[in-house]
Amino acid sequence: MLTYSFDNLGEDSLYEHLYKCIRQDITDGVLTAGSRLPSKRSLAGNLGVSTITVETAYGQLLSEGYIYSVPKKGYYVSDFSSNIVSEQKNLSQETISFDSDSSFYADFSSNQTRPENFPFSVWAKLMRETLCDKNSELMAKPPCGGMLGLRAAIAGHLSQFRGMNVQPEQIFIGAGTEYLYGLLIQLLGFDKTYAVENPGYEKIFQIYSSYHVNCCPVDMDHQGIRIDKLEESGADVVHISPSHHFPTGIITPISRRYELLSWAARADSRYIIEDDYDSEFRLVGKPIPALQSIDITDKVIYINTFSKSLTSTMRISYMVLPLTLAREFLSRMDFYSCTVSNFEQFTLMRFIEEGYFEKHINRMRNYYHKQRDCLLEAIRNSPLFSLVTIREEDAGLHFLMEIKTAIPDRIVIQKAVEKGIRLTCLSQYYTDAPDFAEHIFIINYSYIQTEYIKKAIDDLYSCLIEES
Amino acid sequence: MLTYSFDNLGEDSLYEHLYKCIRQDITDGVLTAGSRLPSKRSLAGNLGVSTITVETAYGQLLSEGYIYSVPKKGYYVSDFSSNIVSEQKNLSQETISFDSDSSFYADFSSNQTRPENFPFSVWAKLMRETLCDKNSELMAKPPCGGMLGLRAAIAGHLSQFRGMNVQPEQIFIGAGTEYLYGLLIQLLGFDKTYAVENPGYEKIFQIYSSYHVNCCPVDMDHQGIRIDKLEESGADVVHISPSHHFPTGIITPISRRYELLSWAARADSRYIIEDDYDSEFRLVGKPIPALQSIDITDKVIYINTFSKSLTSTMRISYMVLPLTLAREFLSRMDFYSCTVSNFEQFTLMRFIEEGYFEKHINRMRNYYHKQRDCLLEAIRNSPLFSLVTIREEDAGLHFLMEIKTAIPDRIVIQKAVEKGIRLTCLSQYYTDAPDFAEHIFIINYSYIQTEYIKKAIDDLYSCLIEES
Repeated sequence: MLTYSFDNLGEDSLYEHLYKCIRQDITDGVLTAGSRLPSKRSLAGNLGVSTITVETAYGQLLSEGYIYSVPKKGYYVSDFSSNIVSEQKNLSQETISFDSDSSFYADFSSNQTRPENFPFSVWAKLMRETLCDKNSELMAKPPCGGMLGLRAAIAGHLSQFRGMNVQPEQIFIGAGTEYLYGLLIQLLGFDKTYAVENPGYEKIFQIYSSYHVNCCPVDMDHQGIRIDKLEESGADVVHISPSHHFPTGIITPISRRYELLSWAARADSRYIIEDDYDSEFRLVGKPIPALQSIDITDKVIYINTFSKSLTSTMRISYMVLPLTLAREFLSRMDFYSCTVSNFEQFTLMRFIEEGYFEKHINRMRNYYHKQRDCLLEAIRNSPLFSLVTIREEDAGLHFLMEIKTAIPDRIVIQKAVEKGIRLTCLSQYYTDAPDFAEHIFIINYSYIQTEYIKKAIDDLYSCLIEES
Repeated sequence: MLTYSFDNLGEDSLYEHLYKCIRQDITDGVLTAGSRLPSKRSLAGNLGVSTITVETAYGQLLSEGYIYSVPKKGYYVSDFSSNIVSEQKNLSQETISFDSDSSFYADFSSNQTRPENFPFSVWAKLMRETLCDKNSELMAKPPCGGMLGLRAAIAGHLSQFRGMNVQPEQIFIGAGTEYLYGLLIQLLGFDKTYAVENPGYEKIFQIYSSYHVNCCPVDMDHQGIRIDKLEESGADVVHISPSHHFPTGIITPISRRYELLSWAARADSRYIIEDDYDSEFRLVGKPIPALQSIDITDKVIYINTFSKSLTSTMRISYMVLPLTLAREFLSRMDFYSCTVSNFEQFTLMRFIEEGYFEKHINRMRNYYHKQRDCLLEAIRNSPLFSLVTIREEDAGLHFLMEIKTAIPDRIVIQKAVEKGIRLTCLSQYYTDAPDFAEHIFIINYSYIQTEYIKKAIDDLYSCLIEES
């Protein structure tokens, strides 16, 4: 008969203790496969516990398969092979180390927004209202493209702000543009070739590569992606940001836009992904109209995000699919749940509907305008001025600074790092950088703090003269 | 000289109006390619507006490429080919229709949670505190796997609740398990073969298919997925839910678990994805230990979600990667941003850390226990009782009900729909249903309202006798 001590229960209940004792005896081989366990009543009597306790312990062992029952006979120890690995799991004590993001006092490479610019009090108010008013709506599963209310609010914004006439049903909300790219690959096909801009945003290339689809960087000229090279590439889908290219700042002119649409119209499988990541922040004049707004052939997939206009840490982006693709999405991929929380979808809907979004964008545009002016003035008032040419400073959030210097870019960047400044250079965004891309640096001013601008410019200057 | 009326400005500013007039003349061919525009000063004088107005309008036309400038000469109309499609975009007036989710008074197929069970007031309090205290943390980009604080809280929960000893760095947070499956395919390889359970949750198969990877359904027996069939399938990765299989409710016993681990150990490329979607809600006894907790070979990828334990509309799930895979993720895929909003990551972290999660789970387990008992009692008190056998009623959230009837399953389901009841049958989860799966229905009681239980059982009974 089994005998166990119930003296050291710790936090366990009686049945848990009994279950663990028997399990141990089974895994240790004390109780061998096929041997019969005592009846519940006799074991209970023997151990001085209730039959219920034994029954519950046996029940757990039964559920987990350590024992089996034979009707009218009793419980038997299972045979789960003698060659099982019975040693305790010896968890590796190694830890995984992360790159610690050493703190730069001036980061010209970051496209984050400044924490102090997020409209916390309005957001908190709207979130509170949402949590009060919308209990049952918050718990209801939205369509795969997201809550129709938010999609209607976005459609209204696009109509007012980007001259785009789209139905809410064409809009698909997702947790970041990176996620949406993945959905688009599933929608358009793993067998397609995707062209990306060279130079361009590295992450886009990484994502296509991570999905193991054919992805080819296509050269740009001063108007945007080259149509001749695009044709040569054999691409089906081209992924571009015609309203403000990163990093060059190029705005693709209307002539090239029509050439792109014409390229797309020449084959059924061709599509254009228009990545309109920061069109809200053009600092001079009106926003450049979206390519989507002049597309009459249903070939343009428009993507935008709230990362730049609110914060990248909330992960809300959206794409506008041509009607044909929207229908295809619904017929083939509507099993996907929308990846953005209802709580934030509702709050953002109110934020847009009640006019806060427009106000916030205007406020941010003024803020960035001032940041840029402050930066340009600091450059003008610095000896750095005689060494640099500024380009593409109107398009918003970043500009290019060409430096007359013989120092290689990587040395400039390294010296800057030593002074606590992070910046990137144009050449690093090319797959194979041409000579003319040397000595051109990208100055992103969305994350830099005003009070450090002067110091950063002075420090950059000292990086250049120390060796020259 | 150009002449435009400024009488009907509408909401446009002077420069916007001028920009639109000139653009119209260019697209209409009134101003032909290569023709020179009047100087800013002379056009301003002629129209009676300021030079600034003309300059701004020209600037916008220039940015968009409708005109170009020749230094010291002036502005010229661009040639963007005569064959452009100039008709107005004629947006299709068709709308996309959604399946309207006709309201069932009793839905035995839904795995949603009841809205009234979400801890709104606690969540609102924690969200408010988060929005007050954490301004700068909320705006900082978290590591690709999510905020370490939340991952540590989850590691603590897994240790207490599932006997799992994992480091926070092994945990990767994502917006829903569907999203995590996609990451896993990218991590493990598009060239791998993925085995899924037959019968099983259709969506898992749909996702693998949507990623165009080889996916094979593998037959189950009463202990879980069959090892012989798994070997035959040539699969590298097997996706299972050993603690509570949907829809059969099978708990894979310890012997089969070791066989699965042994299968995985036989080749480097082999992995087991353990989908532990509702382990919190086992109603009798202790939770079944996770397969991950007995894996000493780093072959088990554990996935769980807050969809069942909080709400599916918040989209927070996580996976625990073996250390080797966690490192590979960081080296190859760390360009991905975490898809869950910082706001909700922080709030959930507090929810777990401050003990609310444990309380909530206990409360929900009691609730589901009552729901199940109420349902079983309603069945016992109904004439339906004589026609049915209940199976697997202890594992939580759903059980199987076998009905003695000659009516085909689809007819039963159709008759139920007509009475306002939705339910599914076991056979529909098979790729090719065997005869023994007939007449077995899945009774998911997580979404049903207590007050409708009796009526639903009566109505189900009437579906069966009307034709018999």
